[in-house]
Amino acid sequence: MTTRLKGATAIVGIGQTEFSKESGRSELQLAAEASLAAITDAGLTPSDIDGAVTFVADQNDELALIRNLGVPELKWMSRTPNGGDAACAVVQHAAAAVATGEANAVLVYRAFNERSGRRFGQPNAAQSGARPPGLNWYLPYGLMTPAQVFSLGWQRYMSKYGVTNKDFGRWSVVNRKHAANNPDAWFYQRPITLEDHQSSRWIVEPILRLLDCCQESDGGVAFIVTSAERARDLQHPVAQITAAKQAHVRNGSVMYSFLHHDLADLPETAALARRLWDASGLTPTDIDVAQIYEAFTPNGFQMLESFGFCRPGEAKDFVAAGELELDGSLPTNTAGGLMGEAYIHGYNLITEAVRQVRGTAVNQVPDVTHSMVTTARSALILSTP
Amino acid sequence: MTTRLKGATAIVGIGQTEFSKESGRSELQLAAEASLAAITDAGLTPSDIDGAVTFVADQNDELALIRNLGVPELKWMSRTPNGGDAACAVVQHAAAAVATGEANAVLVYRAFNERSGRRFGQPNAAQSGARPPGLNWYLPYGLMTPAQVFSLGWQRYMSKYGVTNKDFGRWSVVNRKHAANNPDAWFYQRPITLEDHQSSRWIVEPILRLLDCCQESDGGVAFIVTSAERARDLQHPVAQITAAKQAHVRNGSVMYSFLHHDLADLPETAALARRLWDASGLTPTDIDVAQIYEAFTPNGFQMLESFGFCRPGEAKDFVAAGELELDGSLPTNTAGGLMGEAYIHGYNLITEAVRQVRGTAVNQVPDVTHSMVTTARSALILSTP
Repeated sequence: MTTRLKGATAIVGIGQTEFSKESGRSELQLAAEASLAAITDAGLTPSDIDGAVTFVADQNDELALIRNLGVPELKWMSRTPNGGDAACAVVQHAAAAVATGEANAVLVYRAFNERSGRRFGQPNAAQSGARPPGLNWYLPYGLMTPAQVFSLGWQRYMSKYGVTNKDFGRWSVVNRKHAANNPDAWFYQRPITLEDHQSSRWIVEPILRLLDCCQESDGGVAFIVTSAERARDLQHPVAQITAAKQAHVRNGSVMYSFLHHDLADLPETAALARRLWDASGLTPTDIDVAQIYEAFTPNGFQMLESFGFCRPGEAKDFVAAGELELDGSLPTNTAGGLMGEAYIHGYNLITEAVRQVRGTAVNQVPDVTHSMVTTARSALILSTP
Repeated sequence: MTTRLKGATAIVGIGQTEFSKESGRSELQLAAEASLAAITDAGLTPSDIDGAVTFVADQNDELALIRNLGVPELKWMSRTPNGGDAACAVVQHAAAAVATGEANAVLVYRAFNERSGRRFGQPNAAQSGARPPGLNWYLPYGLMTPAQVFSLGWQRYMSKYGVTNKDFGRWSVVNRKHAANNPDAWFYQRPITLEDHQSSRWIVEPILRLLDCCQESDGGVAFIVTSAERARDLQHPVAQITAAKQAHVRNGSVMYSFLHHDLADLPETAALARRLWDASGLTPTDIDVAQIYEAFTPNGFQMLESFGFCRPGEAKDFVAAGELELDGSLPTNTAGGLMGEAYIHGYNLITEAVRQVRGTAVNQVPDVTHSMVTTARSALILSTP
């Protein structure tokens, strides 16, 4: 079964700021710089933009942003709940707005000072009593950070399938290898070995070490969605949106799945995968290159399995066999991902997916037809027309 | 020019809690009650729902809501920035999701304890440094509430067109007359006279009296959007979505337009009106009944003019001539509106617009073909098929 969005729209411009640990300027400035870069890259001007999409979590006011950019009018504004797990849901929004004619060209952006401002990896007093309410099951027990909360499920995953932290480390090594070739990556020219990983300090013993964790970054990333028809008249090879999906299941939770039958599984991701393959008419073997949201290494393992790139429990073998390498069966996080390049809440995975379709990535995979991005709860496939 | 959304979708179920000043229960409970009522009214079950849309401002977590309702999976989640001015933007989101096949049946909801919890009409210390940043132009001068902030523009409007507070009062009288017939309205059986209005205390002298202001309310409202095709198989007369639009212009602002050439005008609303009429192929004379977001009476005057129901400066004559009455040319706020029925952030205007198309309103306008809702920055038209 295919849907009406299939191939109707495309990502036609990408832009970003530098990725740093202290940008030295406001989040509004970062958003404006990334947005203008994306508009320019598309060969458009601010007056062509008439839609804006971002995360609920983004602190920038849309109207402040368009005033600074010189966008005359917005006909569509939407935001996606949750954080990085919505990184592909923003593409679904923008594609739906364009496909229905509610907007012609949608600016999708995310900008933050996530290292020099509020760090997601640190306990946050403001979380008390916060949504999502599932967090209330963890905070009273002293589990304050994503690494701590997630690790409960990953401990079960490791136990169920016999996975060790060293297995996870091989993911980090590949990401950092790819980042080492990427001048825009924070860890440019700084690859690591598995020994480096294994000697990095424990964050949550025996599950996560420092080098299992994504970065905290300052920066902004933006891109432009318009119709596939219009995309053909613009300047870059067209990165057509074949599918962009989100999935949220009952008894799942944003970060805090605590009600489903086995903590080693991700039922949201299983539902998402089914829908992505259905909508695109593709299978895992059709994917030429993937960007996988690895806030932590085990995230990546679970997504490889959920999307059917390997069988449950076999991600450790898939990774160890080198399948994530540029010459593997699924070259992954080719710009370095959230660990090697930057943590811009998943948006930098999308821009890399576009570059792979265009053929302009620093670690370019040859002859890319289908370029995939996935988080645990949203995913997309970009394709050549 | 028409758009691809025209007539593709419909509102098929409406639901609400009681409207009160102290609900005595959580906002999640209110959201769940209103949502279940809407699902039931549609003749659907929670397992038919696969999308959820609300305001960024809504404090309920989508996943907590679906867990309580028993919705198995969400394929679409989106939120609209801003408050009540986005009341029709949520319909645009839901319609786009359904029209593109990204969701089959979208639950749109809003629930809050806005009287017994945080009151929008009271100064809010948490606003300091808040978005929208335009507010920073007002707070340092002691303008802390919407009534205070908006009144700067309305003073200009009154001066430009020779409008008095007594003119505004006639709007309130009509709303309260309609509410007096509505058993669900807070002001059921409590109509007011113009003298009551004129003797109510000043809120912002000489612009707004107490009876120029909408209520503060506790409650929840929800509705269901699905395809027009599927709507025909459900139990109620179909309220087809002819158009649902939003507009935000450069140098406008959410509540704080401070940069455009004349504070008496609402450039956002002018842009919105153009787009609504273009998309629907209709004109003001085609509208049989209207629900207009009157947070304050002057809002209503400005929208009447912006949408072309009368000429600039002539709203006072339009209202005085009785055109908002049930036998006038534009029966308006037929359930009592935000002043007479309740302030559920505009959502209760949408459910009343549906009832008018169904023929089930307490103050039913005969033979309704086109039923309109508008706020300053979003609007919709519902129609019989």
